[in-house]
Amino acid sequence: MKEKATSFDIAYLAGVSQSTVSRALRNSPQVNKETRDKVHAIARQLNYKVDKNASNLRKQRSSTLALLLFEDPTTDESLINPFFLSMLGSITRACAQRGQDLLVSFQQLSDDWHADYEDTKKADGIILLGYGDYEDYEEKLNKLLAQETHFVCWGADVEGHPDFTIRSNNRQGGRLAGEHLLALGHKRFAFIGNASAGSPEFNQRFLGFCDALQDAGIDRAAILQYNAISTEQAGQLAVHNLLESGQPVDAIFCASDLIAIGVMQGIQQQGLRIPDNIAVMGFDDIPVASYTTPPLSTIQQDTSLAGEMLVENLLRLVNNQPIETNQIEPKIVIRTSCGTASKG
Amino acid sequence: MKEKATSFDIAYLAGVSQSTVSRALRNSPQVNKETRDKVHAIARQLNYKVDKNASNLRKQRSSTLALLLFEDPTTDESLINPFFLSMLGSITRACAQRGQDLLVSFQQLSDDWHADYEDTKKADGIILLGYGDYEDYEEKLNKLLAQETHFVCWGADVEGHPDFTIRSNNRQGGRLAGEHLLALGHKRFAFIGNASAGSPEFNQRFLGFCDALQDAGIDRAAILQYNAISTEQAGQLAVHNLLESGQPVDAIFCASDLIAIGVMQGIQQQGLRIPDNIAVMGFDDIPVASYTTPPLSTIQQDTSLAGEMLVENLLRLVNNQPIETNQIEPKIVIRTSCGTASKG
Repeated sequence: MKEKATSFDIAYLAGVSQSTVSRALRNSPQVNKETRDKVHAIARQLNYKVDKNASNLRKQRSSTLALLLFEDPTTDESLINPFFLSMLGSITRACAQRGQDLLVSFQQLSDDWHADYEDTKKADGIILLGYGDYEDYEEKLNKLLAQETHFVCWGADVEGHPDFTIRSNNRQGGRLAGEHLLALGHKRFAFIGNASAGSPEFNQRFLGFCDALQDAGIDRAAILQYNAISTEQAGQLAVHNLLESGQPVDAIFCASDLIAIGVMQGIQQQGLRIPDNIAVMGFDDIPVASYTTPPLSTIQQDTSLAGEMLVENLLRLVNNQPIETNQIEPKIVIRTSCGTASKG
Repeated sequence: MKEKATSFDIAYLAGVSQSTVSRALRNSPQVNKETRDKVHAIARQLNYKVDKNASNLRKQRSSTLALLLFEDPTTDESLINPFFLSMLGSITRACAQRGQDLLVSFQQLSDDWHADYEDTKKADGIILLGYGDYEDYEEKLNKLLAQETHFVCWGADVEGHPDFTIRSNNRQGGRLAGEHLLALGHKRFAFIGNASAGSPEFNQRFLGFCDALQDAGIDRAAILQYNAISTEQAGQLAVHNLLESGQPVDAIFCASDLIAIGVMQGIQQQGLRIPDNIAVMGFDDIPVASYTTPPLSTIQQDTSLAGEMLVENLLRLVNNQPIETNQIEPKIVIRTSCGTASKG
């Protein structure tokens, strides 16, 4: 036989359909052993080579990953959280580096996305990125698991959940913030950000902060905590309430840089100086953080690495390989908003 | 007839195939008039309603738009231009508002994207966004036109090109910058940014700047110009060369905010003050611009509106409607980097 053998040649000789041939060559259990053996024997005889591209097509791989963005509906509609936007950029780039297209779709928590992607051939797997209330979409995550959709999720380390969550070590990040503020001699602390099960990332930052202070003999009851979602406005409002309360404070750890920027504005509007009167620490290291006055000390989440890890791990799941690493370690970035020398 | 009529019922009664029925109901010229009339008559008789969703499927609409991002390969690989990133965010959002998914793909200028999307059913149309050298991809744009791909492009108003380019009025933006610097009493001007056919957007900003100065009697030959691509590093290097040259300058208009940030750093490293010694003006209004020291006066491109206009116009093309508006007007944002009162 001079021409290159095709799966149709094998199908003809084996007396089965071409789709049975491709299934048999993939050792699919849908084909009985007798037929599988027969097909393999003929394939060897014809010196048949599987065309990888065609094989991908048969497996209906789209070489496309889907990114579902969940927006906090409470924030200004014309803005995207800068941490989000940075992740969108790094995920896009990580996909490009791995030959994947990225299908981006904004979602509402109420949408039927969990069902929508079940049988679609649009994407091989899903990345979920969002800051909504975690408790609201836990049920949908469980449905995705049940229907064996390949997916990863950027978020918090929630107890009892398997490896699909790729995350920062938020608790360690909170600890780093606390240790830094203690080392600078600060004594009266506040945390601004939602700290509850509905915001598990913020909550873990708060718990890590408490860990560090507790190790220094400061009781959790002595740490002031004011709620805020991740916006400048929320930060400004929260610090206003904190200062109005008259409770003394000399260092504030904010659950995000956006909150910290609002907190700095609120403090400066009261005629107080940063860090001389109050130190302010952020979390994220968004691009703006190095340009604020004073430049913001913060806990960095490496969005570039995070994007790579999401894409890499999703591709592992798509290829039926286990996830090996699902946590990135935060890093402290010291600028001047917390002071530079110990207050003694 | 009690059940809802389907196109199969019409096909059966008309004695034609179901696909002929759908074509006839869309008044396709592929079906002769006699058959079209017959099909329409039966459809009326059966009180048949076209199912819009099914109709979309037949036209093979994917409800997906593709965004091809072209990155300037000369910039740091781990960074995305913040103007780009902001556009990515606003395009994603504009798609969501119109029920479209967005397929994002990073491209190299060397890639065969013009051919790749010709017959694909992945997307109904393409948005091109990039800062590469325009002359390098003009040929590919012409191929897209020739193969009747629906596409729009963010970029410059290049002579002889039809409506597919959605753009800022860059020349008017340059004029606004020049008029503002003149009104503040500045007299010796420089422009930092590439000003050639390969960078038509920057070039038009430069030309608009020259227009304003020329109206005030300042000859174009008197305006210093230093090349820079859109990075902080390039801005810093260019202003270093400008200051080294010893030529007097009291106001610098930069082709982008990234360049302006580098220029401000370069000026401050020489111990000079902004705006007292040298005024600095940017272009874009990226988020960081309001946080620099001093806050950067700049020409704003409304990325939210730009994203909407790209998506809206692409959908018009997909639906065979003409583009009506393809230009957004820039707006000056006055902060303090150019001074606030006239130097007289």
